[in-house]
Amino acid sequence: MSASRFPSDVYAHRLKAAAAAADQAGVAGLVVTPGYDLRYLLGSRAQTFERLTALVIPAGGAPVVVVPRLELAALRESAAGDLGLVVRDWADGENPYDIVADALGGQARAAVTDSMPALHLLPLAKRLGAVPVLATDVLRSLRMHKDPAEIEALRTAGAAIDRVHARVPEFLVPGRTEADVAADITRAIVAEGHSEAAFVIVGSGPNGADPHHECSDRVLQAGDIVVVDIGGPVEPGYNSDSTRTYSLGEPSAEIAEQYAVLQRAQAAGVAAVRPGVTADQVDAAARDVLADAGLGEYFVHRTGHGIGLSVHEEPYIVAGNALPLAEGMAFSVEPGIYFPGRWGARIEDIVIVTADGALSVNGRPRELTVVPI
Amino acid sequence: MSASRFPSDVYAHRLKAAAAAADQAGVAGLVVTPGYDLRYLLGSRAQTFERLTALVIPAGGAPVVVVPRLELAALRESAAGDLGLVVRDWADGENPYDIVADALGGQARAAVTDSMPALHLLPLAKRLGAVPVLATDVLRSLRMHKDPAEIEALRTAGAAIDRVHARVPEFLVPGRTEADVAADITRAIVAEGHSEAAFVIVGSGPNGADPHHECSDRVLQAGDIVVVDIGGPVEPGYNSDSTRTYSLGEPSAEIAEQYAVLQRAQAAGVAAVRPGVTADQVDAAARDVLADAGLGEYFVHRTGHGIGLSVHEEPYIVAGNALPLAEGMAFSVEPGIYFPGRWGARIEDIVIVTADGALSVNGRPRELTVVPI
Repeated sequence: MSASRFPSDVYAHRLKAAAAAADQAGVAGLVVTPGYDLRYLLGSRAQTFERLTALVIPAGGAPVVVVPRLELAALRESAAGDLGLVVRDWADGENPYDIVADALGGQARAAVTDSMPALHLLPLAKRLGAVPVLATDVLRSLRMHKDPAEIEALRTAGAAIDRVHARVPEFLVPGRTEADVAADITRAIVAEGHSEAAFVIVGSGPNGADPHHECSDRVLQAGDIVVVDIGGPVEPGYNSDSTRTYSLGEPSAEIAEQYAVLQRAQAAGVAAVRPGVTADQVDAAARDVLADAGLGEYFVHRTGHGIGLSVHEEPYIVAGNALPLAEGMAFSVEPGIYFPGRWGARIEDIVIVTADGALSVNGRPRELTVVPI
Repeated sequence: MSASRFPSDVYAHRLKAAAAAADQAGVAGLVVTPGYDLRYLLGSRAQTFERLTALVIPAGGAPVVVVPRLELAALRESAAGDLGLVVRDWADGENPYDIVADALGGQARAAVTDSMPALHLLPLAKRLGAVPVLATDVLRSLRMHKDPAEIEALRTAGAAIDRVHARVPEFLVPGRTEADVAADITRAIVAEGHSEAAFVIVGSGPNGADPHHECSDRVLQAGDIVVVDIGGPVEPGYNSDSTRTYSLGEPSAEIAEQYAVLQRAQAAGVAAVRPGVTADQVDAAARDVLADAGLGEYFVHRTGHGIGLSVHEEPYIVAGNALPLAEGMAFSVEPGIYFPGRWGARIEDIVIVTADGALSVNGRPRELTVVPI
């Protein structure tokens, strides 16, 4: 094992579960080119494009790795060797789609990973004689239910971003720009153990009222409310994502009161989480608190999104999603209030569904953090 | 216009040519999601994945840009505004594949860019009722024939990498590792005007005999022959790629003699380039010089590859490629000789086919450069 992936038995378990899911979905097997699914199933970060690299998981047989001979080295970091997977390398002049078709036992109906490029998907469909379906539908349940290794990785990432938020107040000095602050936060994200800063949102004053704002050259002023929404991947690749809101100096009584409602809404969302509750019930639990206080119209986005190897994935915590939550699902609970042209606030934790509730991977205080000026 | 793309009239011309190519290929139109084709046709570096962004170029009508409302800002840098293209933005809940189908005039047979992910290709195929073909085949001729703006960009990139090679001898000091040298070269590539170092190969002594070697912790020694193959993109995104070979101290008479044959082979390859000559004739011109001197078996790869927005693209200068060259095509001429376990050498220039020959964008001396030690 390397730091870039989990121990190989984790992938052995996932490969078996993926084959069973393919069987249950009635497809001949899964064909997975480089991307998040390949990383999930094999711990491989291969990024080849022109020449076909693919993991083939037949519904009823052993997985086969198809790889260009020139790029065999890219497999070394993956679990393919430890697991003794069959590796079918191919040289220029051979037809790799024939190899995939063989690995699928000559059956036509395959499911392909959502990132497979047309460059490979179209010749594969032609060779199989049938248009594949999306593997996303086959792997959805597997990818959504985080295993213990993933939960540990999400907790590690959550602790890392908590350490960054602990340092944010020292960066928030009136007279500096949002971009200055974002640069400091970017360095802190890496210093605290992330491989990179995937996103750094610093929304001060009126900019905080735009949930899509990233950062700008606006100069921080005394009295600003500042939304700081930050995160990134921690090896072996699981993401953090946490928002806290800061006040440069004491907030007005009105702001303090409205923020207190938001904090109750976020707590209500988290409190609603347990197995069997649906995603839209969690959304409603947070939304209702704001609506009851007359602030419903200022909460303009969904309550949350799943997270793992990608920052946004299923389950989405949104009105209309009747998916029942289950132990091991991981997602954000992040209501916000946005007063156009004035200020905004958001509170975001990543939570993991437990047997009887929710575990938050983030532990920083959820109050409006007052930065002395 | 911004530095990230050409003036808008360049894209107006390309869009017209692409529509004509689609018409000639008998498809209803092209559907281009983010990637090199979108950058080529619209100057857009959009990178969206989950939500569909696509440029639709009907064979017989005006181009339409389909874009998620939340990501409209990503279009600003492109030529879409200057050219007055129809922009069809869509919000969550709408079906963007319906919009694409409408833009194609309800016809089923589309050609899609090679990077379109299965996530979009499969629902699009379903909506159209027909499996698309690859736009690569439709755009091949257009992408291969560089226009004046592209030729100028390739010349700028060639001059930038020449300036890096001029500095390489100072980095090549016995006692340093290949990785040390590669780090210096990486910095120089950026300092000389590239947006990044796309690849840095430093193959010293026996490592130079492996054409796939990148760099290692091997320590440079007096007497080493060192292959340095480097390049990267220069705004607005066209790539440099140049190889020179260095000798740490005076080479032996045998090495000098074998290198001289390689230099004649590279010159013969370049001299063979002119409109109407086929790609494989250029390959043969270089290869024959080595074969005639008994070195044919040590030249183990193709003679060259096309270059532009991507480092490797058509035309490939390789045995069996009967494509006739034409004015404006750009590719590498890079024969090498590799003596396993001992040493290797390669000489690589990017050339552009002119009305009656070839223009090299690289001007550094092609002799074995002796670094005094």
